Amino acid sequence: MALPRSGPVRSEAARLAILRAAASLLTERGYDHLTMEGIARQAGVGKQTIYRWWPSKGDVIAEAILEGHLLAARREPPDTGDARADLATWLVELFSLRSSPEGEGLLRSFIAAAAGNAETGRRLRAEILAAPLMLRLSRAMGVATGPRLDAAADALLGAVILRALSREEFGADDMLALVDVIVGTHPRAEEDTASPAASVG
Amino acid sequence: MALPRSGPVRSEAARLAILRAAASLLTERGYDHLTMEGIARQAGVGKQTIYRWWPSKGDVIAEAILEGHLLAARREPPDTGDARADLATWLVELFSLRSSPEGEGLLRSFIAAAAGNAETGRRLRAEILAAPLMLRLSRAMGVATGPRLDAAADALLGAVILRALSREEFGADDMLALVDVIVGTHPRAEEDTASPAASVG
Repeated sequence: MALPRSGPVRSEAARLAILRAAASLLTERGYDHLTMEGIARQAGVGKQTIYRWWPSKGDVIAEAILEGHLLAARREPPDTGDARADLATWLVELFSLRSSPEGEGLLRSFIAAAAGNAETGRRLRAEILAAPLMLRLSRAMGVATGPRLDAAADALLGAVILRALSREEFGADDMLALVDVIVGTHPRAEEDTASPAASVG
Repeated sequence: MALPRSGPVRSEAARLAILRAAASLLTERGYDHLTMEGIARQAGVGKQTIYRWWPSKGDVIAEAILEGHLLAARREPPDTGDARADLATWLVELFSLRSSPEGEGLLRSFIAAAAGNAETGRRLRAEILAAPLMLRLSRAMGVATGPRLDAAADALLGAVILRALSREEFGADDMLALVDVIVGTHPRAEEDTASPAASVG
């Protein structure tokens, strides 16, 4: 009895094999040497199967990143109780993807894929600016929801994207300056003056 | 006597012819139908002349934008005396490039070119975040220079880039919210309470 040649289970297995093959080849060879043919061969699928789901290798890589097969773009920010520091830590980790061995050029590949494909573009923003990040930002700003919160989220991630595009460094101090500018310095100033030394007298 | 076949003058004429041809073809046919061959034909140069200076059509377009042959990405912000409003106006104009007839996809093409080419990436940031914009921002923040000013500039332009990538709307109110978040609401609050109605009593 012949098994059905397609269906949800088979499709999901193929999809995962493609994402894993893409991640593995990227790590071995780098983005410039990655081809749809190579991914198809390693995944054991036809090239047309890949093109059925993704228009370019950049889109395959974008999905591999978003699903956690590569890098940790969706890693949640820490939760230390200091939302400003948590945000800065998250930004530093996001930006440091640039300098990881498999990450050279990868954040930029993701950006290029987002530029070329609407769905990848929507996912770039929606999945990186997910609930855990928005919660830290909301806490740090003292704003529950609304256009100010959305603008702040766009500003944080957008600044990282721009620095990645312009190939400029963005150190931990720069990240804190960015968070300070966006979140405002007032909640922090209150915390600072609430330290024991400041409250004496 | 034969004229020299190359030299600074001839090169500059060819360079300008290429940029103008690229701008003209893009407006006529759209980015997807733009090819290096087509640009070369219209400019009356060999394709290799184009590749000598630019690795891809995206890079030609990026340079055409930066030099003002297409769109007005480098347009200075207005100077009305209200630096916050000037910044919001500038952001709205920058983002509206998206919806201009020749601008469909163009901002994203520029971003993709910046992702693929380091020099284009550097120019994207350095030339759009030029002196007139930095001056308005400096005024609005009350900060002359330093990492906070740089972070604020990255946040403004980065937010526009991210919204363009994610294909989400970014209306005038959103731009004002963005400026408010980044510049801080305090100078504006002072201005508001200095109005005649508020100062009575």
